[in-house]
Amino acid sequence: MKVTALIMAGGKGERFWPRSRVRCPKQFLDILDCGRTMLQLTVDRILPLAAMEDIYIATNEKYRRFVTEQLPKLPRENILCEPAGRNTAPCIGLGATYMLSRGEDAVMMVLASDHLIRQESIFRNVMREAISLAEEGENIVTIGISPHYPETGYGYIKRNVDIARGNANPVECFVEKPSRKMAEQYLRSGEYLWNSGMFVMKASTVMRAMETYLPEVYAGLRRIGAGIGTPQEQAVLREVFLEMPSVSIDYGVMEKAKNIYALPGAFGWDDVGSWLAMQRYKSIDEDNNVIVGNVAIADAHNCIIEAKDRLIAAVGLDGIVVVDTEDATLIGDKEHIEEIKKLLEKLRKREDGERYL
Amino acid sequence: MKVTALIMAGGKGERFWPRSRVRCPKQFLDILDCGRTMLQLTVDRILPLAAMEDIYIATNEKYRRFVTEQLPKLPRENILCEPAGRNTAPCIGLGATYMLSRGEDAVMMVLASDHLIRQESIFRNVMREAISLAEEGENIVTIGISPHYPETGYGYIKRNVDIARGNANPVECFVEKPSRKMAEQYLRSGEYLWNSGMFVMKASTVMRAMETYLPEVYAGLRRIGAGIGTPQEQAVLREVFLEMPSVSIDYGVMEKAKNIYALPGAFGWDDVGSWLAMQRYKSIDEDNNVIVGNVAIADAHNCIIEAKDRLIAAVGLDGIVVVDTEDATLIGDKEHIEEIKKLLEKLRKREDGERYL
Repeated sequence: MKVTALIMAGGKGERFWPRSRVRCPKQFLDILDCGRTMLQLTVDRILPLAAMEDIYIATNEKYRRFVTEQLPKLPRENILCEPAGRNTAPCIGLGATYMLSRGEDAVMMVLASDHLIRQESIFRNVMREAISLAEEGENIVTIGISPHYPETGYGYIKRNVDIARGNANPVECFVEKPSRKMAEQYLRSGEYLWNSGMFVMKASTVMRAMETYLPEVYAGLRRIGAGIGTPQEQAVLREVFLEMPSVSIDYGVMEKAKNIYALPGAFGWDDVGSWLAMQRYKSIDEDNNVIVGNVAIADAHNCIIEAKDRLIAAVGLDGIVVVDTEDATLIGDKEHIEEIKKLLEKLRKREDGERYL
Repeated sequence: MKVTALIMAGGKGERFWPRSRVRCPKQFLDILDCGRTMLQLTVDRILPLAAMEDIYIATNEKYRRFVTEQLPKLPRENILCEPAGRNTAPCIGLGATYMLSRGEDAVMMVLASDHLIRQESIFRNVMREAISLAEEGENIVTIGISPHYPETGYGYIKRNVDIARGNANPVECFVEKPSRKMAEQYLRSGEYLWNSGMFVMKASTVMRAMETYLPEVYAGLRRIGAGIGTPQEQAVLREVFLEMPSVSIDYGVMEKAKNIYALPGAFGWDDVGSWLAMQRYKSIDEDNNVIVGNVAIADAHNCIIEAKDRLIAAVGLDGIVVVDTEDATLIGDKEHIEEIKKLLEKLRKREDGERYL
């Protein structure tokens, strides 16, 4: 069966402000300083599994030009622009609808556009097994990451380790971000995996699951499907999407559907969720600092300093994140870096704040 | 007797980097954001005591244009440019030499160009008493600040409180920056004053003291004096100054001379010694922050943030100093802010570091 990919690239990347802005978020940036954007890295790593003409990018209209610039070989019709963000269920449904409209069913890999995967060949082997499993019947395969420490920032998947289909196990349930204590228990039990947000299933399978568990979304997708190829295509898409409920695939489908399998992977996955990820990826100096760009230091420890051409001078700092851009500089304590969202909230309320978002 | 002032304005202001640069140091900046530079504030406050034509500014040749721009009414010949910094004794001797060359002795006030004085009329009353005392015989009057907390960053003056000349007492000795414990003892004793670095004495008195205690400096000053008004004036000044020993007036004269009086003052004096001074001068918000310029905050306490037009965004900071300029941003912990000097040392060694100094 044909293998396709749906790469979700509509996120705002707020946690990477001020490099990532609403006008050009994280997935379109070379945030890892490796010469390729996160979106490009995502496409690069799946090209051995899916042809470029079978890769679809779901994004927002305002990011279309980033996709065409960064992926010049991608067919323009494979850029699916959501008129508004409605979380992952409508997004995945939209991808499946377009794939099915091309005349044949396909096994689709659903991927984030802004994750890091260090061991790409191991990743592809895991995906190959997931693709095989998804081809059979109505199986939905969720890629779970074997945890190696008690992370409290991810959701977890509980699997039934007594039943195996190859390396996969049936999913018992999905659990939200746990407390430290629970996370330690999950790690010890061996039954839990991190929820990576990557799924593999047939386009027809996810549509049938939506018909059952998300009938309102399904009805909308049917209307969109009927419009494809007609002069009303964009108008219908717009009208339907704006009325669509906002619902995640985890909550709307995965937690309810049957035949869900978790396939564990250990391929150096990282969701690159905040500036703190830089210390897992970039080189660290003898004082445990990540230093990029024009920086001068008199005593700094455990800092992440991302400068550009302007000089950032650090004096006696410990555990501070500094990110410099032309018009704004972020200075935050690592322990409170998630409060960037609170900061952006304040900027949204400021008269001249829009220019920094 | 005529009253003159010598304002010492040759310092580098390193502790106020990156606003203060070698090319334009602190005394020529409106560091207090009050619309006047530190030098202008210094002149403003003594104009009721000395006429503009009797005010002399000792500085470096490269700062001459700042003095002429900031003090347009000051006679150009009152700008005394030292060919090289040789500490305070040669500087004060140079001032006295020029004053005496104009034909009559004068009582000179020796002042720093970068201190803050909150109660200016009290300051002037103290200076008037100092001037009277200095006019008599060979008295040298040093202005001591009545300490109100055990500061460890200043030198202290020990006075003999059993003998009084008006509000002044004879000086017993000068002491270097004390430990916390010693500073507390000094404060309790009532015998110690902070050494403000302000002196009042006749020009002839300080010259005679130099003849006695600093004969090498004195000999150089005599050669400079002989050159004044001749075509060789600048050449002699340059030649002599470069050979001059570097010595402070405290060490070279005050600690040895007799007839030294300490006159205590309580006029809201502050040496504005580092960025931390901003929290004593500028308004403080409900979280104990000093915030200037374009700043957005999500949780910050006890911070000093001096922004300009670029946005500085603070997230979860405590006790951090941020000073933004066009080409460099300082981010330092308040507890280690004196390490700016270490940072500048590093910059001096960097190939492109000169542009930031």
